[in-house]
Amino acid sequence: MIPIHVLNGPNLNLLGTREPGIYGSATLADIERDLRARADALGVALAFHQTNHEGELVGLVQAAGAAGAGVLINAAAYTHTSIALRDAIAGSGVVAVEVHLSNVHAREAFRHVSLIAPVCAGVICGFGPDSYALGLDALARLLAGPAASASQD
Amino acid sequence: MIPIHVLNGPNLNLLGTREPGIYGSATLADIERDLRARADALGVALAFHQTNHEGELVGLVQAAGAAGAGVLINAAAYTHTSIALRDAIAGSGVVAVEVHLSNVHAREAFRHVSLIAPVCAGVICGFGPDSYALGLDALARLLAGPAASASQD
Amino acid sequence: MIPIHVLNGPNLNLLGTREPGIYGSATLADIERDLRARADALGVALAFHQTNHEGELVGLVQAAGAAGAGVLINAAAYTHTSIALRDAIAGSGVVAVEVHLSNVHAREAFRHVSLIAPVCAGVICGFGPDSYALGLDALARLLAGPAASASQD
Amino acid sequence: MIPIHVLNGPNLNLLGTREPGIYGSATLADIERDLRARADALGVALAFHQTNHEGELVGLVQAAGAAGAGVLINAAAYTHTSIALRDAIAGSGVVAVEVHLSNVHAREAFRHVSLIAPVCAGVICGFGPDSYALGLDALARLLAGPAASASQD
Amino acid sequence: MIPIHVLNGPNLNLLGTREPGIYGSATLADIERDLRARADALGVALAFHQTNHEGELVGLVQAAGAAGAGVLINAAAYTHTSIALRDAIAGSGVVAVEVHLSNVHAREAFRHVSLIAPVCAGVICGFGPDSYALGLDALARLLAGPAASASQD
Amino acid sequence: MIPIHVLNGPNLNLLGTREPGIYGSATLADIERDLRARADALGVALAFHQTNHEGELVGLVQAAGAAGAGVLINAAAYTHTSIALRDAIAGSGVVAVEVHLSNVHAREAFRHVSLIAPVCAGVICGFGPDSYALGLDALARLLAGPAASASQD
Amino acid sequence: MIPIHVLNGPNLNLLGTREPGIYGSATLADIERDLRARADALGVALAFHQTNHEGELVGLVQAAGAAGAGVLINAAAYTHTSIALRDAIAGSGVVAVEVHLSNVHAREAFRHVSLIAPVCAGVICGFGPDSYALGLDALARLLAGPAASASQD
Amino acid sequence: MIPIHVLNGPNLNLLGTREPGIYGSATLADIERDLRARADALGVALAFHQTNHEGELVGLVQAAGAAGAGVLINAAAYTHTSIALRDAIAGSGVVAVEVHLSNVHAREAFRHVSLIAPVCAGVICGFGPDSYALGLDALARLLAGPAASASQD
Amino acid sequence: MIPIHVLNGPNLNLLGTREPGIYGSATLADIERDLRARADALGVALAFHQTNHEGELVGLVQAAGAAGAGVLINAAAYTHTSIALRDAIAGSGVVAVEVHLSNVHAREAFRHVSLIAPVCAGVICGFGPDSYALGLDALARLLAGPAASASQD
Amino acid sequence: MIPIHVLNGPNLNLLGTREPGIYGSATLADIERDLRARADALGVALAFHQTNHEGELVGLVQAAGAAGAGVLINAAAYTHTSIALRDAIAGSGVVAVEVHLSNVHAREAFRHVSLIAPVCAGVICGFGPDSYALGLDALARLLAGPAASASQD
Amino acid sequence: MIPIHVLNGPNLNLLGTREPGIYGSATLADIERDLRARADALGVALAFHQTNHEGELVGLVQAAGAAGAGVLINAAAYTHTSIALRDAIAGSGVVAVEVHLSNVHAREAFRHVSLIAPVCAGVICGFGPDSYALGLDALARLLAGPAASASQD
Amino acid sequence: MIPIHVLNGPNLNLLGTREPGIYGSATLADIERDLRARADALGVALAFHQTNHEGELVGLVQAAGAAGAGVLINAAAYTHTSIALRDAIAGSGVVAVEVHLSNVHAREAFRHVSLIAPVCAGVICGFGPDSYALGLDALARLLAGPAASASQD
Repeated sequence: MIPIHVLNGPNLNLLGTREPGIYGSATLADIERDLRARADALGVALAFHQTNHEGELVGLVQAAGAAGAGVLINAAAYTHTSIALRDAIAGSGVVAVEVHLSNVHAREAFRHVSLIAPVCAGVICGFGPDSYALGLDALARLLAGPAASASQD
Repeated sequence: MIPIHVLNGPNLNLLGTREPGIYGSATLADIERDLRARADALGVALAFHQTNHEGELVGLVQAAGAAGAGVLINAAAYTHTSIALRDAIAGSGVVAVEVHLSNVHAREAFRHVSLIAPVCAGVICGFGPDSYALGLDALARLLAGPAASASQD
Repeated sequence: MIPIHVLNGPNLNLLGTREPGIYGSATLADIERDLRARADALGVALAFHQTNHEGELVGLVQAAGAAGAGVLINAAAYTHTSIALRDAIAGSGVVAVEVHLSNVHAREAFRHVSLIAPVCAGVICGFGPDSYALGLDALARLLAGPAASASQD
Repeated sequence: MIPIHVLNGPNLNLLGTREPGIYGSATLADIERDLRARADALGVALAFHQTNHEGELVGLVQAAGAAGAGVLINAAAYTHTSIALRDAIAGSGVVAVEVHLSNVHAREAFRHVSLIAPVCAGVICGFGPDSYALGLDALARLLAGPAASASQD
Repeated sequence: MIPIHVLNGPNLNLLGTREPGIYGSATLADIERDLRARADALGVALAFHQTNHEGELVGLVQAAGAAGAGVLINAAAYTHTSIALRDAIAGSGVVAVEVHLSNVHAREAFRHVSLIAPVCAGVICGFGPDSYALGLDALARLLAGPAASASQD
Repeated sequence: MIPIHVLNGPNLNLLGTREPGIYGSATLADIERDLRARADALGVALAFHQTNHEGELVGLVQAAGAAGAGVLINAAAYTHTSIALRDAIAGSGVVAVEVHLSNVHAREAFRHVSLIAPVCAGVICGFGPDSYALGLDALARLLAGPAASASQD
Repeated sequence: MIPIHVLNGPNLNLLGTREPGIYGSATLADIERDLRARADALGVALAFHQTNHEGELVGLVQAAGAAGAGVLINAAAYTHTSIALRDAIAGSGVVAVEVHLSNVHAREAFRHVSLIAPVCAGVICGFGPDSYALGLDALARLLAGPAASASQD
Repeated sequence: MIPIHVLNGPNLNLLGTREPGIYGSATLADIERDLRARADALGVALAFHQTNHEGELVGLVQAAGAAGAGVLINAAAYTHTSIALRDAIAGSGVVAVEVHLSNVHAREAFRHVSLIAPVCAGVICGFGPDSYALGLDALARLLAGPAASASQD
Repeated sequence: MIPIHVLNGPNLNLLGTREPGIYGSATLADIERDLRARADALGVALAFHQTNHEGELVGLVQAAGAAGAGVLINAAAYTHTSIALRDAIAGSGVVAVEVHLSNVHAREAFRHVSLIAPVCAGVICGFGPDSYALGLDALARLLAGPAASASQD
Repeated sequence: MIPIHVLNGPNLNLLGTREPGIYGSATLADIERDLRARADALGVALAFHQTNHEGELVGLVQAAGAAGAGVLINAAAYTHTSIALRDAIAGSGVVAVEVHLSNVHAREAFRHVSLIAPVCAGVICGFGPDSYALGLDALARLLAGPAASASQD
Repeated sequence: MIPIHVLNGPNLNLLGTREPGIYGSATLADIERDLRARADALGVALAFHQTNHEGELVGLVQAAGAAGAGVLINAAAYTHTSIALRDAIAGSGVVAVEVHLSNVHAREAFRHVSLIAPVCAGVICGFGPDSYALGLDALARLLAGPAASASQD
Repeated sequence: MIPIHVLNGPNLNLLGTREPGIYGSATLADIERDLRARADALGVALAFHQTNHEGELVGLVQAAGAAGAGVLINAAAYTHTSIALRDAIAGSGVVAVEVHLSNVHAREAFRHVSLIAPVCAGVICGFGPDSYALGLDALARLLAGPAASASQD
């Protein structure tokens, strides 16, 4: 089974530890624990990382590529500003799925454009921690089956 | 259990019936059949519609709202041009999940903007027919549980 | 006396039936009833239509033109996207007055541009159901008197 | 009864005195006389001002606010360039209705944007001197009744 | 011989019946009669439709595709706003020729962009009813001969 | 019979002489020969020119105007950059038809705008050498008959 | 002989009194004196005004119109921001010539657009005080002779 | 006395020879004759050229520079498209005055920007043939006197 | 000691007198009193003005320049629209510091651009009345010491 | 007393060590020393950091938030490009004041927009090292007193 | 050995002959002489041309293509405006290298876009005459060896 | 001899190790080896670095500046997003040459703008590994000789 690396970008380490009334009480550790359980059920090996550094995120994508892993990525703010991350995904040849906790399309205009989406297989946003769970399912099926094929609309 | 209405926009009736080498061999009927099986497993009642008419899509959203149903919607081309559809979703108060077969962010620039995304709970795109399955899971969990809460990024 | 056709666009059928705390308790039927009373007082014959279909709205404008009627139109979302509606108004030669319940200039940017305003005689927005009443008065006087003439600013 | 201040911006003093073939023969004095008659019938006290100065227009709005009056305003050219006027309306807390003699949406592009519309209750344009009469009716009813309520579209 | 479906968009039913001084006295029926004569001479079977509905136009394109026909289309206002129509042409695989009675490039800026032109074989505009005749000739020759080949400029 | 000058812009002299697999094997000389045959059949005198120089193209348009001829023009790259050519067509008062071998709307964005189209009677593009033949037919009929009249859409 | 009103906008009263190394030593009084001498030689009555107030400039244009005078105007900063001034020139029906001391096209981008130029007869800029002298000559000849006629380029 | 080269761009050779009702009856030869008389009175040697070729206009500016002459230039359409002409003026170090017969600011938007104005001393437009006369006066005084100095506004 | 003129733009006279819950209870008079105390402590003479007129603000800047004073300016709405004010500051040669009570960058987009900031020494915003106090300190130190020197970032 | 963390972004370590004629002779160490003296006088504990890494700056903001400190930040180049930094400030809930040595509004256009300003309390720029001193005063007073309250303009 | 044609655009004939303090003392003849020496050393036949005419530059590219030569081109101002030149390079199938003496990216914004760069193999700018020498080396190696291959970043 | 630091940005470590069919088989180590040989021949000391971190790249530029070295830089993705890198180059006073393996102008639009080019001496792109070799030659000659002088075009 192809392993999956879950990569988290800047400020996601703040999740749940403050303002739980606003952001929910789930911490990134909670998300990791739930994902690991789900991965175990699927028989998928999981690596889980968070970093505030664009360069480290680039390196983590390259490492996933070198390990032959799929990538589930919430690049947070770097989603909208990092061409380096886009080049890392395209250059490493990884199959990547982009996820966001919030519905970025309902927030500030600068969050409506994703520089990495065009080089990812698909995007899931708006479902809170469930975005990760859905993304894991989607990625596991992509990696397992025949290419889900190009499709209309 | 809250029922779910699956609404499909223009040209999705062409799916699978032609150019299977490009679009895959799955027809909209195949997608419907798989979704119905999944919905049965989840214990969710499913309505399934396709129309080429913007006005009918507006009416179907209103009908879902009147029926107290959740909405899983692939508005296809109307995603990018229909303020009427956006108003229908917002005005009907339905919980909606937007799905697309293809990764719209990797296609023409005019497909990068969704007029309905800001009034949907979340968006899933790029996984072929699996986008619908993931969307059904996401929507069912949204409708079942406590609001998945606003979340950071 | 020249008759007046009151044309209502998409989602206006939702008026008052839900979220009265937000949208007021007046339904489209209430608006129609009040307008009919006002029209009777003015001695004007009134037709009243609502549709969610752009094409039907085009047809209703053409029908008003064929009937030699004036048009009071709240095109709702199609105000901002329908060149077809603009062409129908210009091509049918009707005298039209554009109305909106809300002050569209205080809402999202995509509601600030009206594609039909340049081919209407005038625009009234922001007064709730009173926008219709004011529009009926304005249109009746336009149709009755000498062309109100081009005017500065 | 809440009084109403009618405020007229730059160049409206030219109305009717020249090129009557184009702009109509109604002067600003004619408009004032007709409005006063209408206001008397409504039992509303009316103040009527014209100025070519942006700063004076700002001051007149402030004075209306201090007097507890409603404002019927044709800001003419300053409609499109004066943030100061917008701030005066918002800061004074007056209920204001914006009117224009001509249909500004059918003229040059720089007249399509109103900086003051978002802080006015509503806008009426295109009906010649009748825009003022309709605006007076609208404003009197707004000031008299319960807030006409926020309304859809 | 491959049949040809001539599809006409919104407001084209108004042609000739009003303002003949401006639009000419040719009605859409006149255009249809002349095209049928021309098609007979060419030995081409002709279907001829007009609709004000975007969704119906989408359906008519799909039907032409299903019938193996070529498409001569004057989408009128939908030319500039309908991604759904574009998707229908591309998805149905029809050979389509876009025509317009007027020279759209000499009119308002919003008529300078055609959303369907990139998926049509070619475009003809500005020749009045003769645009249809020229388009029929062009389309018949395209369908009859070897692909006219990609060509420079 | 009014003569017709066929004017060809920069790089059209390269047609057919290289990369025939891509551009087809028709040379500009082939196009000229076919057009002359068609013109003879129509009884129209034909002049045929090609130049890489913007200034010469301006002069050729002026010469056609001085000769009382109609103009069939493929301005190639100058279509998109030459105001001088536009001024020549407008200033010379010639009836001009713009043609292109390829469908310029399906190519780079900078080829979507034509500076000369607004001063031409009509435009034909996308039919390879047949664009010239259709353009000749269109122009001959325009020059022969009563002005084909302004027409809707 | 038709009189000429020379109108100067904001900050032109600072001319020459400071930084003569940069702005030259000519004061506005010097410019006025030289213009008066030139006007005397031409037999033209001259009025000369400067104001920092947009509203006063509007009023001065109206006054010139009421006096049947031509207008030579250096609106300075208001050139680029005042729609009110544009409306005053257009509404008063004055023949106006716009002048600037500096070459505004060689300065900041916001000085490249003049809101009043489209309603002036012509524009002269870049010649220092000589711009006024040239403008006076131009305006005097415009007012004296037959309309200098519309002209190409 | 420094000589002056008067350079005329594309289509100016059409002046006066056609559509005199629109463009006036003055030909370029008339303008040249009047300018020569004015230059004789000023004691200035005059060269006068017209060309439709951008490259020739570039060469004529270079030649003026090599001859130590000042340049009075109506670049017509090339005003708005030719960086080469701008580079020629800047690179040759000539003192140049830009003139236009019409008020370019009152015409199409693409004529509002001049690529050469920033490297000219000043601009005069809108006075018909008198623009040339005024430009000659301005240039002669510039070349004769001390640099007219940089000036405010 | 160099004196300081504190200049306040439109609507700042409304401060504190209304909606204290929103804008705080400090009036402009309170701000003036506190600034005068601070200026006395610094040994700086203070002038304090408020006006709703752009032209008066221009004049006040010129007067400060003539008096050799430094300028502390809250131009309010004119910050974003007045080139005249910018020219006054630049032309008068005053050392000016721009202040705002609110953080303009957190408000509407049209408040994000300041036309006067580029000709001021520095900008302070967002600290309520303390913005004035900080600005006075900054300006007093600028006027007292050696030019604070150009500095990186 | 709430402590204050002073955070410096990329290249600020270069201050003063080179090109003192341009950037002044003050080094970042000088600034730190002066700030510490000022903080001591105010009784405020000060931490002082500089980093060239965006990710580290994000971490430093988070650390300040975790320590309950206020933040005085000169993000240098990251001011204009880092959404991650904006999210860190907003997500950490710190009270932050943005400072710049230079007047960024008088420099390149890409320095006119600050991504972090909307989530800071206020901004101070243009006073050289004194920007830090003023910022420290402002922040100390913000942290000490009642919220300085929202204020008009 | 494949020959190389060095093509120079407008105004490059001015090089070195004037303002040597600014542009250096190297003339285009000097550049040609040095290039010929370098070409001799490389065993490459060299043709060298300069023209101010866009059309001639198009023709020179076509001639190079016909001669099977590589092209080293400094298109000067035409770099930024000539689609015709782009079409000539693409249509002739030549291997071309674009060079500039100055660093165009450090100059006016309109010099930042090259219309020909996308159809050239590579670009070299900013090294004065050495740009030509480097370009010759690069082009000679491109023509000599195996395609230097597509490369990342 | 002045030493040269060769700095490589994100993802360049992936070169050659994967997809050699696309990116060529040259690794970054191959490029380094070839450059070292070339540098030895030139008698230039070479340092060679690669990093995925923007902040490290900033530090490496500063270090080169501190070492008095010239900089040959392929900033990869940071070329288009890093103002920090631009400030580092400008602030360190290094002579820098920007290189790219691919022709960035023939790729996505977001790669057409370089934020660092305006502060580099020159740019070389499109020649694969040869871009580095050419850049080394260019930089060595720049550092060795008299400033290659500002040059036209």
